Amino acid sequence: MQSIQFNAHHSPVGAFASLTLGFPGAKGGLGHELKGPADEPFYVGLEEADREGYYQALPFFEAAEDKSADYDVEGHNAEFSYPNRVSHFAWVVISRKFAACTDEWSAGDLKFRIVTPYPAVPDPALGDSEDLKNAICPGVLIEVEVDNTNCQRSRKVFLGYSGSDRYNGVRIIDQDGLLGVGQGVSVAIATHSEGFKAGVAWQPEMVLNSRQPDNEPFLIGSTGILWTIVPAGEKRTYRFAAGFFREGTATTGIKTHYAYRRFFNSVEDVLTHTLERADELIAQAKTQDTSFAQGLGEDRAFMHAHAVRSYYGATEFLEREDGTPLWVINEGEYRMMNTLDLTIDQLFFELKMNPWTVRNELDLFVERYAYEDTIQFPGDDTKYPGGLSFSHDMGVSNNFSSPGNSSYEQGGLKGCFSYMTAEQLLNWSICASVYGLKTGDKGWLQDKQETLKNCLASMLNRDNPDPAQRNGVISLDSSRCFGGAEITTYDSLDVSLGQARNNLYLAVKGWAAYKLIANVFADLGLTQEAKTATEQAAKAEATILAAVEPDGTMPAIIGEGVPARLIPAIEGLVYLDYVGLECSKPLVEALKTHLTTVLKKGVCKFEDGGWKLSSTSDNSWLSKIYLCQAIAENILGFAPDHEADRAHVNWLLDPANAYFAWSDQMLAGKACGSRYYPRGVTSTLWLSE
Amino acid sequence: MQSIQFNAHHSPVGAFASLTLGFPGAKGGLGHELKGPADEPFYVGLEEADREGYYQALPFFEAAEDKSADYDVEGHNAEFSYPNRVSHFAWVVISRKFAACTDEWSAGDLKFRIVTPYPAVPDPALGDSEDLKNAICPGVLIEVEVDNTNCQRSRKVFLGYSGSDRYNGVRIIDQDGLLGVGQGVSVAIATHSEGFKAGVAWQPEMVLNSRQPDNEPFLIGSTGILWTIVPAGEKRTYRFAAGFFREGTATTGIKTHYAYRRFFNSVEDVLTHTLERADELIAQAKTQDTSFAQGLGEDRAFMHAHAVRSYYGATEFLEREDGTPLWVINEGEYRMMNTLDLTIDQLFFELKMNPWTVRNELDLFVERYAYEDTIQFPGDDTKYPGGLSFSHDMGVSNNFSSPGNSSYEQGGLKGCFSYMTAEQLLNWSICASVYGLKTGDKGWLQDKQETLKNCLASMLNRDNPDPAQRNGVISLDSSRCFGGAEITTYDSLDVSLGQARNNLYLAVKGWAAYKLIANVFADLGLTQEAKTATEQAAKAEATILAAVEPDGTMPAIIGEGVPARLIPAIEGLVYLDYVGLECSKPLVEALKTHLTTVLKKGVCKFEDGGWKLSSTSDNSWLSKIYLCQAIAENILGFAPDHEADRAHVNWLLDPANAYFAWSDQMLAGKACGSRYYPRGVTSTLWLSE
Repeated sequence: MQSIQFNAHHSPVGAFASLTLGFPGAKGGLGHELKGPADEPFYVGLEEADREGYYQALPFFEAAEDKSADYDVEGHNAEFSYPNRVSHFAWVVISRKFAACTDEWSAGDLKFRIVTPYPAVPDPALGDSEDLKNAICPGVLIEVEVDNTNCQRSRKVFLGYSGSDRYNGVRIIDQDGLLGVGQGVSVAIATHSEGFKAGVAWQPEMVLNSRQPDNEPFLIGSTGILWTIVPAGEKRTYRFAAGFFREGTATTGIKTHYAYRRFFNSVEDVLTHTLERADELIAQAKTQDTSFAQGLGEDRAFMHAHAVRSYYGATEFLEREDGTPLWVINEGEYRMMNTLDLTIDQLFFELKMNPWTVRNELDLFVERYAYEDTIQFPGDDTKYPGGLSFSHDMGVSNNFSSPGNSSYEQGGLKGCFSYMTAEQLLNWSICASVYGLKTGDKGWLQDKQETLKNCLASMLNRDNPDPAQRNGVISLDSSRCFGGAEITTYDSLDVSLGQARNNLYLAVKGWAAYKLIANVFADLGLTQEAKTATEQAAKAEATILAAVEPDGTMPAIIGEGVPARLIPAIEGLVYLDYVGLECSKPLVEALKTHLTTVLKKGVCKFEDGGWKLSSTSDNSWLSKIYLCQAIAENILGFAPDHEADRAHVNWLLDPANAYFAWSDQMLAGKACGSRYYPRGVTSTLWLSE
Repeated sequence: MQSIQFNAHHSPVGAFASLTLGFPGAKGGLGHELKGPADEPFYVGLEEADREGYYQALPFFEAAEDKSADYDVEGHNAEFSYPNRVSHFAWVVISRKFAACTDEWSAGDLKFRIVTPYPAVPDPALGDSEDLKNAICPGVLIEVEVDNTNCQRSRKVFLGYSGSDRYNGVRIIDQDGLLGVGQGVSVAIATHSEGFKAGVAWQPEMVLNSRQPDNEPFLIGSTGILWTIVPAGEKRTYRFAAGFFREGTATTGIKTHYAYRRFFNSVEDVLTHTLERADELIAQAKTQDTSFAQGLGEDRAFMHAHAVRSYYGATEFLEREDGTPLWVINEGEYRMMNTLDLTIDQLFFELKMNPWTVRNELDLFVERYAYEDTIQFPGDDTKYPGGLSFSHDMGVSNNFSSPGNSSYEQGGLKGCFSYMTAEQLLNWSICASVYGLKTGDKGWLQDKQETLKNCLASMLNRDNPDPAQRNGVISLDSSRCFGGAEITTYDSLDVSLGQARNNLYLAVKGWAAYKLIANVFADLGLTQEAKTATEQAAKAEATILAAVEPDGTMPAIIGEGVPARLIPAIEGLVYLDYVGLECSKPLVEALKTHLTTVLKKGVCKFEDGGWKLSSTSDNSWLSKIYLCQAIAENILGFAPDHEADRAHVNWLLDPANAYFAWSDQMLAGKACGSRYYPRGVTSTLWLSE
């Protein structure tokens, strides 16, 4: 039996918020703008059928501790604490139905369901609309179902949590038919079901078993509980909403507020709107549960659902002071904003869900996060004209970095935290071309014509300052490296993927960039540029093919004699195929042979059958594995690797990893970085369009 | 030598903020709306005179840990970490000059000074003014002085901290001549001294010893550092400001924002204004350093300065949506707001500094936190008319409780967290009378005439429903106790001070309330009420005097045969004296005898000479000790108890306590509750007016 003890995001769209739940203990809760779970006790429980005043709840909390000792220092007042009466449902009696938009736990007579559809977000350029309001309402729907039909007693049912915000105490909301508990103006859970009561205390027993039911809430406590009584012999469903709200400034560097502020003035507004739309949300979620799993086997359906959730937990839809929209994907535990090498992986999913967000990200890269550099050969101080590129990210932890600079890149390094100038240039060029070609937004491509020309010029320069010596592959480093070396997005792997120059992965990606941009230029009537790009693509292809060694594989770094072999050599194939363009047959064949040869245990597979991106590194990234699986199957004609899928599921569900919801970097199957991460939606390529 | 290793608040007025520093390690920092220190590393250091690239800093941080492993999971990139080069100045070479408004550390060639004058806050009813703006500007001035006159080398000097807010990353402020580091829109440190640079990194060495000085800030780090170079042979003073800012909603329950929002739109505004007023702030602080210590010996000057600081760190000056002011004192680690039994102790200090704040607090108690109850005798369910009283507090942790309810009081209890109905009635009545009589604000007393009448009626009822049986002392409990028993503010002590009925401490306090309210009624021409109150005072006095036992002491609970003896029996004497009214000689004499008899080791003194409020409890509260010391000396003619002062200083400086700045509840000298607390300003009564 597959473990159900894993955290998953349950998030509205664009609120950088998640009701994360599923891992045992106080390891989830109402996470708002966090790098990981909120680690709050969360309570959903039911009175036992045969013991009054005893409760069983889903095991998302630890046993309560008695805080009264801080107030009652000589311990005269034991009368104030309550014996623990809320126990965990045993995991063996809990079942969980997990889909992309509906997550349901059942235990005894209790069902607990979190419902999070992901509606398309209308392009905000089209103006305000009810659809836009509904899409970005920062609320999450919860249902609690109690089947008391076989019980002769009425039983209490409750939902609540303990707040972890250090600035604001837990409060009760009681207005306009809404009853809830929350912290500050930022987070709350509420219901409009009738017959509920709300309490605040140090422990749920103090509310549920209060010796004085008429007591006012004990606001010193940080546990807020909503409860009611289910009549004997009845079956009832209660609805709740969890709401998130950032009232004022959301980010510094670029001052913004959340886009939902157009429609909502308080977390109470959010809760009410979410509850009012419950039926619609449930229907939407059901539809999307199916569509996100369409054609997928159990393992892939699980991983895709998980990845989609983690993506939405990272979405942050902002509005600048001038009213223009700003779409941010936060980088999981790292919280970097709109990391461009994530953008390109999330591209396929975003183009499916909300194509305008891709355009929005690319525009801001041009407006604020573009730069011009000089470049140099390794070990040589001579500076040559480089050209346009883009920063790795736009900032971190709700703070936008200064123009032209990421939060991440530093000079003087050869490894992690060095510049990714060449790769980010390719990333922007590919994203822009794919966006334009896939959506047919020719107006935007026309607007970006000069930028695209500058991208091409910059790519050429980075190949070789001397046109005669160009081979289609990056050979120089940005002078921003101050004598260090550019790296690739695989910053934490060994040199097989770390070094940018002559990197096979980047060579194929560069080939794809030239091919795509050539198509764009052709569409725009820029014949000369199209020709140049096409020639460069051909050179790149020739260089790559020339690197094939006698065993049919290509080395990770071309021409430097490294033994490492890479799966992501094939990454660059995806883009042309995705926009419906033909890939070059010889290149496809060569990469097919390469992959066939390396894709075995001891080379590019772990012992459990999971894919190993580099033969010389134990660090393998699930987002990239998903991507390469799709390429292998859709372009190279490989059969789906079910053993690998199983291994990858096992990685995610390993008790050491499952706290972090969906994670990317797996060191021999252990989440070691890029935890709680949005990038896994490359899995969207598993789905047939 | 007295220890200098203690945290102290360094706070603006009314911002609920404190740059807390002084305890070893990462145990202070920029605390904003917290229940204790922010526990942030804080850096102020200087390059060593004879070793380039090595630094000594005040020991307010732990050795830096290397966080790059989360990103560089296979450890290929050791190049990114820097060897630790910032060491602690040894405590033996550090000296500290600590006064109420200036706190200065010296170590080697470095001086570090935090300057926090506490200007009077003009009554906001008088409208906006430059004085009001200056008084409530939420900024703190810092000076760093480097004496490099004896050094042939230029040396780097730096100031910075690591931010602990979980929502916002550390950013750099660089605008309009202001250079700073901070988190979100809420907290920042900045300078307008020329020649400074700002960096962000994981450790200060990455900024100070950067291998690539042209690198952009590494915003993934949470350590922000401002640094410059002090030329060889020069002496320089640099000024910084620490700023605090809550942009939007500050509290729920009653929706407010900070009053400083009238004048400041950003933390940058605050920083600029603070720096522009530096000379003025320094001069003010010097004057107040003297006035707060006037006539006090070293121990008392220390304790008073410490208490004043902790008071200001708890001040929160808000404005309601209708523009009316709302002054809050937060209850230290408990964060309860405007706890009425603290208000009465802080009364003397507030009347000295900002009398309108007392009126403001009392008004809100009448407007929202008054209630009417019934009352009953212990063990008897019969309900009698009670009358008006006031809740214990107005809420907790920036959440105002519902009308008529505190965050604290619960029914069904006999100890901690029970109701304090009778005492809070006395507290409001005394505060109102003292405010009116001391300030001469007769208009306000007239406005409150009905409330005061209701207070008297409620006091009478709580004595005995049958007028013939009244003895001037509380004999009934509020029905809000649901069969429990009312307690006193000494909630955490044993029954000697815990029980309200027939409590000696409350009896004397009640006597004072009757006397004061009688004077107010007389002033208002309410002869009948004045007469009733006077008669009740006489009855109370008679009851108290009748309780004197053969040894000259009075028991903690009148007529219940308890052995406990109390120092706070004398508390009630302070109010009449404070407003210049005569206390009754027989009562004064009796209490003098009582105190003389109990004030010895083994009864109401600890072995170290510190005062023990109750002979039967080890829990003694410094705020109340200070108050009772002042009463003993000013009213009962005792000589100052220097041995006790010394003991009390030692309590505060005990390494187990010194982290919490000023704390109140000391269990045999160990801070066990009411830590980081505002109530110590009863020490203001040590000063001659």
